[in-house]
Amino acid sequence: MSVVVQKYGGSSLAGVERLRAVADRVAQSRSRNDRVVVVVSAMGDTTDELTALAHQLNEDPPSREMDMLLSTGETVTAPLLAMALAARGVDAVSLTGMQAGIRTSGAHRSARIVDIVPQRIVDHLSAGHVVIVAGFQGVSEQLDVTTLGRGGSDTTAVALAVVLHADQCEIFTDVAGIHSADPRVVGDARPVASIDYDEMLELASAGATVLHPRAVEIGAAYSMPIRVRSAFVDGPGTLIGRQHHMEDLPKVRGIAHETDVAKVTLLGVPDRPGIAAAVFGPLGSAHINVDIIVQNVSHSGHTDLSFTLAESDLNRARPVLDRVVASVGADGYDADRDIAKVTVVGAGILGTPGVVARIFEALAGELINIKMISTGEIRVTCIIERSRVEDAVRALHHTFELDLL
Amino acid sequence: MSVVVQKYGGSSLAGVERLRAVADRVAQSRSRNDRVVVVVSAMGDTTDELTALAHQLNEDPPSREMDMLLSTGETVTAPLLAMALAARGVDAVSLTGMQAGIRTSGAHRSARIVDIVPQRIVDHLSAGHVVIVAGFQGVSEQLDVTTLGRGGSDTTAVALAVVLHADQCEIFTDVAGIHSADPRVVGDARPVASIDYDEMLELASAGATVLHPRAVEIGAAYSMPIRVRSAFVDGPGTLIGRQHHMEDLPKVRGIAHETDVAKVTLLGVPDRPGIAAAVFGPLGSAHINVDIIVQNVSHSGHTDLSFTLAESDLNRARPVLDRVVASVGADGYDADRDIAKVTVVGAGILGTPGVVARIFEALAGELINIKMISTGEIRVTCIIERSRVEDAVRALHHTFELDLL
Repeated sequence: MSVVVQKYGGSSLAGVERLRAVADRVAQSRSRNDRVVVVVSAMGDTTDELTALAHQLNEDPPSREMDMLLSTGETVTAPLLAMALAARGVDAVSLTGMQAGIRTSGAHRSARIVDIVPQRIVDHLSAGHVVIVAGFQGVSEQLDVTTLGRGGSDTTAVALAVVLHADQCEIFTDVAGIHSADPRVVGDARPVASIDYDEMLELASAGATVLHPRAVEIGAAYSMPIRVRSAFVDGPGTLIGRQHHMEDLPKVRGIAHETDVAKVTLLGVPDRPGIAAAVFGPLGSAHINVDIIVQNVSHSGHTDLSFTLAESDLNRARPVLDRVVASVGADGYDADRDIAKVTVVGAGILGTPGVVARIFEALAGELINIKMISTGEIRVTCIIERSRVEDAVRALHHTFELDLL
Repeated sequence: MSVVVQKYGGSSLAGVERLRAVADRVAQSRSRNDRVVVVVSAMGDTTDELTALAHQLNEDPPSREMDMLLSTGETVTAPLLAMALAARGVDAVSLTGMQAGIRTSGAHRSARIVDIVPQRIVDHLSAGHVVIVAGFQGVSEQLDVTTLGRGGSDTTAVALAVVLHADQCEIFTDVAGIHSADPRVVGDARPVASIDYDEMLELASAGATVLHPRAVEIGAAYSMPIRVRSAFVDGPGTLIGRQHHMEDLPKVRGIAHETDVAKVTLLGVPDRPGIAAAVFGPLGSAHINVDIIVQNVSHSGHTDLSFTLAESDLNRARPVLDRVVASVGADGYDADRDIAKVTVVGAGILGTPGVVARIFEALAGELINIKMISTGEIRVTCIIERSRVEDAVRALHHTFELDLL
């Protein structure tokens, strides 16, 4: 008997009216399907509010306690939705991550799902109940509450779809699907009907916030189709799954951009083996992700080493950078916050003659200077001046005729 | 090694400033004691707000889901207090009711503690941690979250004090202890230095809301001393424990009152054996507590049967009463909401000549009519007109010279 897994995000659940609308939608699904599992996020800005409260009491709150605190956001939504369903005559039961059998590592605030023991969910489904699972949370081997980090509810939903052998995982959100570019920037951006896991991963990693990369990775690993659609407006949304491109399909699938970017340049770094490990090891240990790395040509045994990181990580990175400068014997470092990242994603983009040239031409046509470049199998990322990022997205969207598809 | 158990109520935890003050107080206790366990309620009006939200979605929400929802109130407070302690250099760990090993019956919204398995608490105490337990909640055999009903956090605290062999259980609240009458009504009401479990039970059952009767019952059953004191002002508060009264101690300990009272009179009830069971059985099954019962003298085989119940239960009682009227063949029922209850409590009150007479004289002196009377070993309760209840409390407080002690 097929299982439907649906996930509703925080903005779809913000307030009583929206909760009722979600309950209507779930009740509809239940009328068409015997087995419905719903994963919910915290309502609206709950997580941010709890975080602010915590920081008023402790600037650096213990992460175990943060997990206990933040998990309550989802644990509030789940029974509220179950009640709203009961009011519609639909039997529903809410489960915490622990009750749902979601076992994780003990890495608080960014726990990984180790295993799911879905027996309790299966029992409730067999009894005809809609099962509402609090997303974003699990339980460690020590029986401590853990949370899965950003996008955790997406991860919960896709992982549950996998273990429950669902036909697909539906992610309901506040937009109509994955767009060819951010609709707030490009007026004629359109939802993409279907997209491959790899392309989605690149878009998500490059700033498309609709779906978290971890959820996409799980979907890819288990070939679980994921459909992203609007919680407010009916429509097919975007299906993320294995694509079988014909040669004449468009090569460019979408344009992503990201403004939470800063560039750090280490000045006068001795050019010797092992230097990269000495620089990036300490940053990795501090959980600071580094993105694009560029090393200038060496002059007289010294070089400049530039890389990007999230601007929101920069303050946390500074003491680490100070130590790195001292340990490798560099002259110092500069930080540039006035940059942004624009990424063109499409299967086979690097193997297709002319695509990269068209990107550079489009930006040149707008007099936008490219500060750094990074390419992957299915993407090209350019670092540009932050004030020009929207112009760049529009120019690229137009160049690749994404508005015409 | 002795264990200190402290409980902080919702008003003591309302807002960041008060949380900080409680953290200061707990940190102080930790500096004086090796083993400190703190039980916390939900902050301020959280429980009422969550209840209101639930009722917007479902007028009669399933009680299992209500428990899941309401338990989050305490689960928010516990990690926040742990963080505030961490900011003061005090190692602290928050535990849900389940993590604290509090096993309950499956009666949602009014679960009873069946057993406490305190191993995890003991381990944390041995490691030097202050243990913060979310009050009011436990876990059923089915691993569902349960709540203990009104006053549940008091119950959690006293029960934990018992299983952890604490020297005493401290209940921190927004008043300086158990008063001889409600200080909002009687200006010169004073905190009682010490009081027996039985007296406290009568006061609590008669409307004194400072400490829940269930917590007192557990204290009495295991002879656990309970100290009620202010969370805001230093002071000894009231010690509830075994008293050894000398004959010349005051006989009257305090005056309690309650306005959430209604009187129901079943009219023309056939006066035959088994009628009480036919009336009160269905009310009991509907979890409606009946208090004082008065049966009028029978006339021609029929009688009027009056009893009091909480006014807030009256609407829920009406369909039950309709069925009772039909099943016993009564003529109908009247409900009177314009009443209140005033209770005089003191050890040996009924065995002391003149005490009951002085109660009646005091009320008569204020021209207050007594509508119903009920007596117990250590209390006398009078049902009077609601508008006169404060006058009655003041007159009785004065008559027994409680302001002079």
